[in-house]
Amino acid sequence: MATGTLQFVVNGHGALLTCLFLIHIGHVHCQQFLIPFKAPSDCGQKEFFDISSLSCAKCGENQRQSTTGLSCICLPGYKTTNLSSDKGPVACEQCPTNKPAVTKDGFGCIRCPGSLNEEGKCQCSSGNILVERDVNGNLLDEATCKACNSDSPALSVPNISGDKCEKCQATFINTSCMCTSPNVLAGGLCFPSGGLSTNVNPSVNYAQLKFSIQSAWFEENLYSSAAACLLFSNLTACQALGNMCVMNMHSVSSVANDACGLFNTIFSSKTTLSSVQGIAYWKANLPWLYYGNEPGLASRVLQTDPVPVSFSLRGTKKNTDLRLLVAIYNVRGDFLRWEQVGGSNLQFCPESATRQAAAFSFGTAYQQSCDLSVAALLVAHPEPQFYDVFMDVGGQNKNLLPLPTLVQNQQYNGQYINQGTMKNWYLSRRVFLVDTLSGREKSLSSSPKVIRVATTITIRFQLVPRTQVGQIYPPLVSVSYTDVLITDINTQTVSLSFAVEYEMSQTDARTMTDTALGVLGGLALICTLLRTASYKRRIASALIDMATIGKFLLFFAGDLANAFFAVTVGTGLYWLIFYKTLKAQMFVSVLLPTPTQEERFVTYIGCAFAFKAVQFLHELYLQVSVDIFLIDWERPRSKPNRSVQGATDTQQDSSPVSIWRTYFVANEWNELQTIRKICPTFQIVAVLFFLEVLGFSNLALRDPWSTLERLPQAYTPPYSLVLRYGVAATLWLCIGLLQVIFFTVFYEHFVEDKIRQFVDLCSVSNISVLLLSHTCFGYYIHGRSVHGHADTNMEEMNNNLKRERESLCGQRGLVPNSDIQTFQVSINRNLRSQFDRIQGSLSRRNRPSRLMDASTANLSELQFRAYNTMNHFLGSFIDHGLSEMDYVVRDKLILERILGMEFMEASDKSLFYNDEAHSFSNVLFYGNESLLLIFDTLFFCVVDLGSQNFVLAAVLTYAQQTIFGFLRNSLGRRNLVNKTLVDQRFLI
Amino acid sequence: MATGTLQFVVNGHGALLTCLFLIHIGHVHCQQFLIPFKAPSDCGQKEFFDISSLSCAKCGENQRQSTTGLSCICLPGYKTTNLSSDKGPVACEQCPTNKPAVTKDGFGCIRCPGSLNEEGKCQCSSGNILVERDVNGNLLDEATCKACNSDSPALSVPNISGDKCEKCQATFINTSCMCTSPNVLAGGLCFPSGGLSTNVNPSVNYAQLKFSIQSAWFEENLYSSAAACLLFSNLTACQALGNMCVMNMHSVSSVANDACGLFNTIFSSKTTLSSVQGIAYWKANLPWLYYGNEPGLASRVLQTDPVPVSFSLRGTKKNTDLRLLVAIYNVRGDFLRWEQVGGSNLQFCPESATRQAAAFSFGTAYQQSCDLSVAALLVAHPEPQFYDVFMDVGGQNKNLLPLPTLVQNQQYNGQYINQGTMKNWYLSRRVFLVDTLSGREKSLSSSPKVIRVATTITIRFQLVPRTQVGQIYPPLVSVSYTDVLITDINTQTVSLSFAVEYEMSQTDARTMTDTALGVLGGLALICTLLRTASYKRRIASALIDMATIGKFLLFFAGDLANAFFAVTVGTGLYWLIFYKTLKAQMFVSVLLPTPTQEERFVTYIGCAFAFKAVQFLHELYLQVSVDIFLIDWERPRSKPNRSVQGATDTQQDSSPVSIWRTYFVANEWNELQTIRKICPTFQIVAVLFFLEVLGFSNLALRDPWSTLERLPQAYTPPYSLVLRYGVAATLWLCIGLLQVIFFTVFYEHFVEDKIRQFVDLCSVSNISVLLLSHTCFGYYIHGRSVHGHADTNMEEMNNNLKRERESLCGQRGLVPNSDIQTFQVSINRNLRSQFDRIQGSLSRRNRPSRLMDASTANLSELQFRAYNTMNHFLGSFIDHGLSEMDYVVRDKLILERILGMEFMEASDKSLFYNDEAHSFSNVLFYGNESLLLIFDTLFFCVVDLGSQNFVLAAVLTYAQQTIFGFLRNSLGRRNLVNKTLVDQRFLI
Repeated sequence: MATGTLQFVVNGHGALLTCLFLIHIGHVHCQQFLIPFKAPSDCGQKEFFDISSLSCAKCGENQRQSTTGLSCICLPGYKTTNLSSDKGPVACEQCPTNKPAVTKDGFGCIRCPGSLNEEGKCQCSSGNILVERDVNGNLLDEATCKACNSDSPALSVPNISGDKCEKCQATFINTSCMCTSPNVLAGGLCFPSGGLSTNVNPSVNYAQLKFSIQSAWFEENLYSSAAACLLFSNLTACQALGNMCVMNMHSVSSVANDACGLFNTIFSSKTTLSSVQGIAYWKANLPWLYYGNEPGLASRVLQTDPVPVSFSLRGTKKNTDLRLLVAIYNVRGDFLRWEQVGGSNLQFCPESATRQAAAFSFGTAYQQSCDLSVAALLVAHPEPQFYDVFMDVGGQNKNLLPLPTLVQNQQYNGQYINQGTMKNWYLSRRVFLVDTLSGREKSLSSSPKVIRVATTITIRFQLVPRTQVGQIYPPLVSVSYTDVLITDINTQTVSLSFAVEYEMSQTDARTMTDTALGVLGGLALICTLLRTASYKRRIASALIDMATIGKFLLFFAGDLANAFFAVTVGTGLYWLIFYKTLKAQMFVSVLLPTPTQEERFVTYIGCAFAFKAVQFLHELYLQVSVDIFLIDWERPRSKPNRSVQGATDTQQDSSPVSIWRTYFVANEWNELQTIRKICPTFQIVAVLFFLEVLGFSNLALRDPWSTLERLPQAYTPPYSLVLRYGVAATLWLCIGLLQVIFFTVFYEHFVEDKIRQFVDLCSVSNISVLLLSHTCFGYYIHGRSVHGHADTNMEEMNNNLKRERESLCGQRGLVPNSDIQTFQVSINRNLRSQFDRIQGSLSRRNRPSRLMDASTANLSELQFRAYNTMNHFLGSFIDHGLSEMDYVVRDKLILERILGMEFMEASDKSLFYNDEAHSFSNVLFYGNESLLLIFDTLFFCVVDLGSQNFVLAAVLTYAQQTIFGFLRNSLGRRNLVNKTLVDQRFLI
Repeated sequence: MATGTLQFVVNGHGALLTCLFLIHIGHVHCQQFLIPFKAPSDCGQKEFFDISSLSCAKCGENQRQSTTGLSCICLPGYKTTNLSSDKGPVACEQCPTNKPAVTKDGFGCIRCPGSLNEEGKCQCSSGNILVERDVNGNLLDEATCKACNSDSPALSVPNISGDKCEKCQATFINTSCMCTSPNVLAGGLCFPSGGLSTNVNPSVNYAQLKFSIQSAWFEENLYSSAAACLLFSNLTACQALGNMCVMNMHSVSSVANDACGLFNTIFSSKTTLSSVQGIAYWKANLPWLYYGNEPGLASRVLQTDPVPVSFSLRGTKKNTDLRLLVAIYNVRGDFLRWEQVGGSNLQFCPESATRQAAAFSFGTAYQQSCDLSVAALLVAHPEPQFYDVFMDVGGQNKNLLPLPTLVQNQQYNGQYINQGTMKNWYLSRRVFLVDTLSGREKSLSSSPKVIRVATTITIRFQLVPRTQVGQIYPPLVSVSYTDVLITDINTQTVSLSFAVEYEMSQTDARTMTDTALGVLGGLALICTLLRTASYKRRIASALIDMATIGKFLLFFAGDLANAFFAVTVGTGLYWLIFYKTLKAQMFVSVLLPTPTQEERFVTYIGCAFAFKAVQFLHELYLQVSVDIFLIDWERPRSKPNRSVQGATDTQQDSSPVSIWRTYFVANEWNELQTIRKICPTFQIVAVLFFLEVLGFSNLALRDPWSTLERLPQAYTPPYSLVLRYGVAATLWLCIGLLQVIFFTVFYEHFVEDKIRQFVDLCSVSNISVLLLSHTCFGYYIHGRSVHGHADTNMEEMNNNLKRERESLCGQRGLVPNSDIQTFQVSINRNLRSQFDRIQGSLSRRNRPSRLMDASTANLSELQFRAYNTMNHFLGSFIDHGLSEMDYVVRDKLILERILGMEFMEASDKSLFYNDEAHSFSNVLFYGNESLLLIFDTLFFCVVDLGSQNFVLAAVLTYAQQTIFGFLRNSLGRRNLVNKTLVDQRFLI
């Protein structure tokens, strides 16, 4: 075979592309295949669209494009002769002059009785038919026009193609095929006179756009439908009339001759006994459009009798399927079919079948929305369809419950009655989704000026209060239509949404919460009173002044916060358990509060958080202003003999007592400031792990299922704030509690207990700690070394420790033969005033010091003397060395422990209460774990409720902990420096 | 009006419901509306479905249900008389006996020429028409049957309703309306003989199900389509034949009389010059089904010439729209329309328009899948539609590029040729989505036995390598069909997926990575060699033994890990920057690696992590086994005069030197173990905050957009592992770096610097620290107090500090008049052996001690002696007191610093190198921040790559840090206790 090259040029995207044809051993290679785009409309009059090559091809001779553009037909005056495979599918031949017209089938030529039409075919006048063939099919030489006999009994008119006489429409039968006056011809029917005034109002009012138009559809069909319905009881005509009323959004006005007015006129003309299915609002032959208009009917329909069906989420009687059915009618009033709701009818947005099905699982809050382009709507909905919604309640008869509908746009004499309270509602039935028909003004084929779309469809289920068998009231379908003025169909979009909501009356729940809050609030008040009393006792003041009231309010904030917290966590847990867990809800008995109903709950959480924050800041302030002094028991070793009784007066003669033990103890105390009973970071990480990795956050979804894992293709309902709070707070508290248990039971026994270590350190280092949290109340850690001296070398230290382990020396306690080292102390005022006096010169530098020199950071001589005096004074006090200020050691009464106050006043002697529980940790974070845990919980939950983002909540909680930890540490360190004179460079 | 009650019973759900009618002032109240469900099919023969009341209603007398079931018609023999409004819409009247038949319109009675049919109407024999009215429409008394003249020139046959003679089909014209032998009548056409053998094979083979069936559609249409295509060049017939070949999945076998065989026969019969649009594979009148069958054609078509269109992601020439068009044909071969791809054609799963549109934005990897029920498919696709896919490349002519299609199921002589490598591929064109037609066996109205669904459709775009103008090769449409055997249509589902993929050859990128890895690997080797040399110098050994090789490998692991890490982070950043950032990709020049291409990258990350883990564990081991000793310079105060030179021999005579300073220093050293240059928890929280809250994780999506916020309704592409790693590692490193800068530049200058504080503490407490990290190398912190004594009271301590601040005393440095306190030391072997000897008795208890008593935890007398000896020995050494073991202090050379090794061997004298950079932190976490940071980064990324979950990665990284921190702390503390004899109770 020949080999050659052939070049041609394709102009694509402005660039020249060269394509080589290599005709080579029979194959043609061309890598760049490009064809120009052609559609049938691109082809010229003498071309047709070749569906094989997708290009325009020339028609044969004497031919032109057919109407579809996909083939050629003969020109007028040319008959089709033959199918020829080589010259295209048809060939044309001119008709002879004696038979100038082409027959209707195009294959023959004929003479006409009259004139020819534009297509070169014979035409007859109206009412006549064209006869081209005889009865046996033989072509005539000349066609004839025959008149159809329209009188009875022939009653015939030409058929559509005009070649045969047929029977005319049934309504004409009585009158011959001419509808003579006074009969009225409308919509192709002939109505007897006097039935209905022909003066009808075919306008459609677009209230949102504030104009109305004369609708072509209404003009054409309103009178005829109404008349056919009224006079002939025509079923489809009645439906069509009803549909026009629905297209007018059921709106009723004083004008009686619009669609709804005509409907109501016909409705009223029916007797009461013509009710359908025993329902008074549903008359024979008519669609059911309205419930009655008595006041309060809506609430009677919606909230009186439960639907005879039980919903159960689990167990053998599990029933969660909502079967909603619609009866679909087209705009002409034909009944099309029954259909299950979902998919393309009410649930309109495109979505996968699995997700769409989730809308009809009882208890799953469903919300779906999308934007659809107007162009797509116009194509998909050339005519509206009308839906009567029913719920299938099952039973032997397969009973259906007609669902009442609330049209938000329905007007009653110009008032939007359905947008107010329920007592004014007018319930109705039948909805449509998209109406592109009524907005066509001149003709039905013109493009609509306005379209009306059901943009919001909500089905609302209400649970019967206190039901134990999962009963509901009749669900309400709520529809809101939007009028869309057509401006540019290609760019305009419409937002649609479909939702299924569940609600139950929250009156019971609200009563319960309010009761709980009342009781707990009362308890909180009692607590606060006790707390204030205890506080007054501890500051040794009996006056009730502004400060007292302030303190009272601060304490009350804390206790009230606990009350709110308990109530909210309780509520959250209640919903979590009753709505979500497996065993409950055999029959549905509770439904989640709706977002509106949740507002109250959120307020409570806000209160709890605000009050807790006040309490937390107050506690923080108290902790960083506590009075603390480290009493050093070490006495200088006297030179020749090591008698412990070496008096403190003879200072500086012997080698000085080393300050390093004090530094050590102060350093350790500083490190204790912010340790907690839990590890706060682990807490955050663990909560996040449970919520986000293990999927506990899915428990907060608004559906009754408690599965942690959700498939990505499954429908995800919105979150419930109550459940989110319930899950988060419960998880936080549980993990916190587990941590507290782990740390107090396991870690502190087997790894390390920092508090215990500190007490031991005091003892080993021969240093006592006096903490005064209130004016006359505080804590004392007795740290006097049992060995007399602690300021010694490694060998002796080890020997001392060894002796103690082997119980070769005395016990560490304050009282002989006891080892209780920690005490709560109530000191008397005498002691306190003495303490204050020395403290005054000790911490002088706190005062504003204008007169002092620049190196004010240095400690003065005076302060060291005060330090020594304080050391000596407190040492003597503990040693019972001051007769005027003595103390007694006693156990606290159980009631005193429980109430957290002291019954006895330290008037004469100070009181030391044995305290093995190390309650001095109350001035540290360690002793206030519950406060911190609750504060963190609330902080986490409040951030989450605001942002719906657990990760953000975790991050901010971490930041909060870090900031407050840093504050507590630095302020606490400054306080320690001020009160103990330890240089802050040693607090590292 | 009357008031009364009326009770009736509705049996719903097995329960009796009572409904009260309160007829009261004209209104009827009934709260419980229930109606039984009825469909038209539920009504009996004598009932019709009342569309108003949705119930079955009785027909009138002599009536029965019509076929729709929605109305009543007269019984056979009864004519319809009248429209009466009271007795239903129709009334029927029996025909008189002399006119027993009813006319076709049902309104008249007539005599028949022959017999009556079942409906009581006249019937004529075939070829005849029934005439009931004369030409003017007057009803005849007796109907007549007339024969249509089928011969030329009348050529008529009865029309469909059998009441008129019409022209017969065009193919009969030559032969009269009888298709006489030898002509062949098929499919309503009359074919001349000899054109095509009537022996065709109408079977459809379902290879997946391993059976074939005789398809009703093929039986009916295969021969006629092929014959009409071949003989009459009928365009639609050719398309219909092609469609049958497509329904057979283009499969070609040796059998030449199946659909594809017939197509190929007709194709071969065409001359080469009848090519369409200059494309050799596309012959006139035929659809384009196959590319040629030369070997290697597929890769030539797919990878030779770029498409003449440029994709640009940003800038003025932005072009990201993929405009794919399909020409749609129905199964009969009619061209229906051009349509944009998307929506219901190829992209088949229901999804919102916005998400679907994302598939056609260039560069966005798209994946959509869903399960559709077979029942829905059967309803939606009664017939298959066929799609020819084109890409619109624009230009003046609006050029189209036909897209090659790869049918995975295509067989060639029984071989699945398209499932192998590209060189064997047979490209084709035209696809269908759902074929429910070819599986119908007996008749077209029977339900199908098998349906065939295009379950996987993938459009794959390949970028031209090294393009700078965003050019692509012709995209490939890959289709995979699934045969579904119909068993139970209501429960069966089919999984469909549609994907758009982008790929480019990664050869260049791979070469680049491999080169980088080679270079960095070489550098790593050099580093390791240097490191090993330095190590050998520091342990003062020259032998190359197994231990050395082991060390070499350990070092190499670390360096290699860095190389891998650098390469992977570089790669990740490269893709992130070039694919995602705003300025790049004006024209598309790179595309992300596909998941398959990513495997190599993941392997690299795995290597980096494994090697880094080895290095980390090795470093951990080294750190917890470092030698440390605290040298106490304090000497006891001599009794009368305070001379510092008091010899250590006269122990116990004076008051002992307090050990508390040593405790303090040891305690602080213990606390330094795990501090780091960054806050690791903040690191995790910050990374999580950026990734999950600020949405940086969206940067890792497989699309070219770099927006952080994605709307929930927008399409979310899958993640790219490379980008995930790139984003996570970059973020981790950046935040880490920022933290390091913050802590070293700001925090340590203005808040606290723990390392500096420790050095100061040493100085203030009169204690030096000697750390030996290697046998003959280590660090020394000179802590000798400039005041001679540190063991003193608070007043003197403060005075000392004050004097130092006012520069009234000497400087702290080891060398007089310098304040350099920290040194790197190279000690000679002599010193080391002496050190080891004393150390031996110091830490005796480490050895297995069978002979010792139970209280082995106690320190022995011997150990204290050893402690004192060590203290004295090291003190003397530092004081230049040992003439045989002296040292010199010098600066390190710059090269020594850079290489991290010492050039001079400490043979005679030990060497002290000034080290102001506190490099002793190398034995702490603090000095190894880069190692820890990279290890954490890799750990985080590896967990994330495995789980695709940043939160889980963060949680596990936190756990990892906690565990290793705890390990390091406890082991470090044990080491400290062993080496310094400080009781671990003081390390709190």
